[in-house]
Amino acid sequence: MNTYGDIFRLTTFGESHGPAVGGIIDGCPSDVSLCMEDIRADLARRRLGAPRQEEDEIVWLSGLKDGVTLGTPIAFLIRNKNSRPEDYDILADCYRPGHADYTYRQKYGIADHRGGGRASARETVARVVAGAIAKQMMPEVEIRSDVVGTRPEVSDDTHGGVVSCRVTGVPAGIGKPLFGKLNAQLAAAMMSIPSAIGFEMGAGFAAAQMKGSEYIDRWNSAEGGVRSSELTQTNHCGGIQGGISNGMPIEFSVAFHPVVTIPQPVECLHEDGHLETLNIGGRHDRYHIARAAVVVEAMAALCIINHLL
Amino acid sequence: MNTYGDIFRLTTFGESHGPAVGGIIDGCPSDVSLCMEDIRADLARRRLGAPRQEEDEIVWLSGLKDGVTLGTPIAFLIRNKNSRPEDYDILADCYRPGHADYTYRQKYGIADHRGGGRASARETVARVVAGAIAKQMMPEVEIRSDVVGTRPEVSDDTHGGVVSCRVTGVPAGIGKPLFGKLNAQLAAAMMSIPSAIGFEMGAGFAAAQMKGSEYIDRWNSAEGGVRSSELTQTNHCGGIQGGISNGMPIEFSVAFHPVVTIPQPVECLHEDGHLETLNIGGRHDRYHIARAAVVVEAMAALCIINHLL
Amino acid sequence: MNTYGDIFRLTTFGESHGPAVGGIIDGCPSDVSLCMEDIRADLARRRLGAPRQEEDEIVWLSGLKDGVTLGTPIAFLIRNKNSRPEDYDILADCYRPGHADYTYRQKYGIADHRGGGRASARETVARVVAGAIAKQMMPEVEIRSDVVGTRPEVSDDTHGGVVSCRVTGVPAGIGKPLFGKLNAQLAAAMMSIPSAIGFEMGAGFAAAQMKGSEYIDRWNSAEGGVRSSELTQTNHCGGIQGGISNGMPIEFSVAFHPVVTIPQPVECLHEDGHLETLNIGGRHDRYHIARAAVVVEAMAALCIINHLL
Amino acid sequence: MNTYGDIFRLTTFGESHGPAVGGIIDGCPSDVSLCMEDIRADLARRRLGAPRQEEDEIVWLSGLKDGVTLGTPIAFLIRNKNSRPEDYDILADCYRPGHADYTYRQKYGIADHRGGGRASARETVARVVAGAIAKQMMPEVEIRSDVVGTRPEVSDDTHGGVVSCRVTGVPAGIGKPLFGKLNAQLAAAMMSIPSAIGFEMGAGFAAAQMKGSEYIDRWNSAEGGVRSSELTQTNHCGGIQGGISNGMPIEFSVAFHPVVTIPQPVECLHEDGHLETLNIGGRHDRYHIARAAVVVEAMAALCIINHLL
Repeated sequence: MNTYGDIFRLTTFGESHGPAVGGIIDGCPSDVSLCMEDIRADLARRRLGAPRQEEDEIVWLSGLKDGVTLGTPIAFLIRNKNSRPEDYDILADCYRPGHADYTYRQKYGIADHRGGGRASARETVARVVAGAIAKQMMPEVEIRSDVVGTRPEVSDDTHGGVVSCRVTGVPAGIGKPLFGKLNAQLAAAMMSIPSAIGFEMGAGFAAAQMKGSEYIDRWNSAEGGVRSSELTQTNHCGGIQGGISNGMPIEFSVAFHPVVTIPQPVECLHEDGHLETLNIGGRHDRYHIARAAVVVEAMAALCIINHLL
Repeated sequence: MNTYGDIFRLTTFGESHGPAVGGIIDGCPSDVSLCMEDIRADLARRRLGAPRQEEDEIVWLSGLKDGVTLGTPIAFLIRNKNSRPEDYDILADCYRPGHADYTYRQKYGIADHRGGGRASARETVARVVAGAIAKQMMPEVEIRSDVVGTRPEVSDDTHGGVVSCRVTGVPAGIGKPLFGKLNAQLAAAMMSIPSAIGFEMGAGFAAAQMKGSEYIDRWNSAEGGVRSSELTQTNHCGGIQGGISNGMPIEFSVAFHPVVTIPQPVECLHEDGHLETLNIGGRHDRYHIARAAVVVEAMAALCIINHLL
Repeated sequence: MNTYGDIFRLTTFGESHGPAVGGIIDGCPSDVSLCMEDIRADLARRRLGAPRQEEDEIVWLSGLKDGVTLGTPIAFLIRNKNSRPEDYDILADCYRPGHADYTYRQKYGIADHRGGGRASARETVARVVAGAIAKQMMPEVEIRSDVVGTRPEVSDDTHGGVVSCRVTGVPAGIGKPLFGKLNAQLAAAMMSIPSAIGFEMGAGFAAAQMKGSEYIDRWNSAEGGVRSSELTQTNHCGGIQGGISNGMPIEFSVAFHPVVTIPQPVECLHEDGHLETLNIGGRHDRYHIARAAVVVEAMAALCIINHLL
Repeated sequence: MNTYGDIFRLTTFGESHGPAVGGIIDGCPSDVSLCMEDIRADLARRRLGAPRQEEDEIVWLSGLKDGVTLGTPIAFLIRNKNSRPEDYDILADCYRPGHADYTYRQKYGIADHRGGGRASARETVARVVAGAIAKQMMPEVEIRSDVVGTRPEVSDDTHGGVVSCRVTGVPAGIGKPLFGKLNAQLAAAMMSIPSAIGFEMGAGFAAAQMKGSEYIDRWNSAEGGVRSSELTQTNHCGGIQGGISNGMPIEFSVAFHPVVTIPQPVECLHEDGHLETLNIGGRHDRYHIARAAVVVEAMAALCIINHLL
């Protein structure tokens, strides 16, 4: 399932060390002029501090004429110019701990061991391009993310973190009840990001420790008119009730586990069952949280535009 | 969107104070004899301690012949015998704080104010029936949930909590990459439960504070054969890597906010904008976490069977 | 797959000789008052001349309050009061020719032999109810069907026929390109009706014998304004070009094969491979084409409303 | 909706006169070695006699390693080397009769007038590539098509025709009841092909003129064993009953209307409403039926593999 969305639909492709990554966006509104600079800026944020610096030049294959959307599928690709698949030759028959090498092999029988194949963070390039386009289709919506709660000093230089995100400008009444709840779909969108391991709306896990009288978001009086972003005095629910937006900012957080490639020898599981201590090559991130933030925004944009359109 | 799943599909119906709630299960395997006692037992757990005690007698409308599944849609209903819609008359033009009254009205223009309509926990009856059936279709899988982390003493008698869930017997290789990740779909399934406000796999938010060397789940040697549930020494990832199960127990937690109907007068927002202090009637839960556990199990079963079939 | 549509979604249930047939409509617009008389009238047309006269009283389970749609799922059922499953006992281990007994058994391992189970025309009751509701959601659209091309005299009293259908009031620009073409989805909707065996838009199979200069629908001048239903001089394309409506009437025909239960002894295939001559009981239609017309309209309504909403 | 299928999913992109056409196949089984020669052969059949001869060289972007499928999305593109968009400049504000120029403009507000954009037959390149791959995933299935019923002499050199198709090797029990009927999905697949205007299974429209006793496919005795392709004496139903295959050959026909670009001046509808007589440039087919045959096979393969997998 490499497709996200049912109206503004992104289908992605590309292995980390294959010739290219990219995607097709189906359902993008027509007759909108794209700002390429904004798309490139989001790609630059995704690349920030990454050990493998790709130029990330986007090749547009369809769906645009003179930079204006036609309403037909927008296909794009970004070549993997800087791949070094030979870095991975020692992994041909070994499964790294913490990675998806083992589970992919269980599922597919075959796996492209070079750079994690589809499970690599390289795949998020297509999400960021599509998310940047989605943002431009809903200029009234603003999506901001911040890194919170990473720990300051770490001895092996790789650690996890939390990204909090705040979306303003979504009107009341967006979302669906039951299985199509906006918060449920945000959760799925966020948990689909590599390394995501937790999600919470508004007060989140802290709400589990609250009393009802502490938790409920009390109304502001709306006499004389009130901006919908001042509907309630607090925003413990994160702007969504019964799966539907109430017009307050939509606020959520995503926890990411640390990068699982550590700069130390690790025991890998060989296909035949024995353990083998390897020094994993490849050029890997030490710290991915700052870069995860733009992916969080992209997925938020993709989720919300599917409800707004 | 009142449908869950793409293979074993549950479509639910019913307002809290309408004549009945129920659903249609499409895609249930044929030729399996249902144990009605197990279904009733899960319904009894859902009812545990609820102020509104319904008999919850299931009327089977189709899909069964002598208790054996035909492979055709299984339709069922449970009558709402104990509804008192008149309890809600004072809410006809007022929105309660913390409830979905306001957001439903924004979306639909009309809302059934009696008992929260579709946003009521009464809707989970259909999920529990379908979940109990799903469990019976995969006898090798065991799903257990526990309430953790509720606070012992509460002054207004309503509070939140966390349900942890552990699923054993799911083989390695279940799930899909990217947007169909098993963890992402579990997140969506859980966040679709009324009052759910947070979700985490395995170590979850705690993993955000870990170093990579602390987080990664080290392999056990598999020489001489090893049970897949002993694949790794720890299970910080919660049994899913790259969106695909590794054969270890699938472990996750769901945070629930407190019941939002509190036994005190609250200020409601009148349609015309002024605040009005009301004593909300209706027979409401004080503590719903124990009852949420069986819904967590049901949604876990519905999520996993869609990947297993 | 017992669900039709992606916005206005109908999920149906019920075996021909089980306790009830019915469905859930998800995605119906809210705040529309239903005319029950029109729904009953369509049901009466479906029953016209049928040997098994059911009262077809609709029990509404959800989604309505005082006859007004709530926007929540509309569940309904019609009890099978007049079923005589014992008529079918001789078919427990025999497959009738022309029926789906054999294919259902191949697929499901088990089959409800009583009255064709889900493959029975009884299942169309739910489609007609949902179609009648869909018509009421788009009052500007008119759907009319006629029986054409049945042969006047038939010796065994059962024969096929063709239903032509004309839909007016659909504006230009409805439909989607490629795999979501409106004509493709109409084809699927019609071929899903029991006994349907052919479908054509506009000139249809006759167009295969035309020259290009004969086939193309020439424009009328639109100077001074023109009604969209007078856009072209002919309507060989049936009102759809490139999968999208052009504002002309949408015209198509559906061929139905004869009723396959004939009033003569027929050779049935026994499970063990031998042939067995049986006089098939049950109360079966001789002539179903007039009754198919209202089902054609219902499916047209369900197809079109999913594009209009 | 530029995606076909729910398991073996093809998403296509590309305007006729843009830089490239292509697609992403998601859900292709892993570890199958592709025969590139067979794919090229189908592409050559699609090109047969076309006035615009493209080399149709396929660029594989992902999903393959040394020609073996990885189970990840297979992305491919074919560059439009031979496009002459300037041929179409006279069409910038005129709608041709018979084409989708008008309907696309109604839907999207903007339209790429160069060569029909997405509505062009050029788009079928991606279907043929995906269909050729699908055929290789089910070697036990054989799909053969023939052109029937075109008229021998035509004065303006463009005419319609009928393609009949016969699929052998599909086991009994494939398909779904009701809205997922295999015949309904074949109908949608075929009607999605440019110029398709009619579809029939087996005896089709002729069955509408039959008596029941003429129509029903009588069983052969299966004593002593019988090949499923000899299940019945005739195959009027086209190998599908109740939406599910019975093991006989699946037989259907597709009617195509003539090419709508005729080599004569035609009156086009100008945006401002007046008619304007134009000599349409571009290099257009006179006779497309022979080339439609391979597209029919491709869509049959895509339809059937989604039921077989």
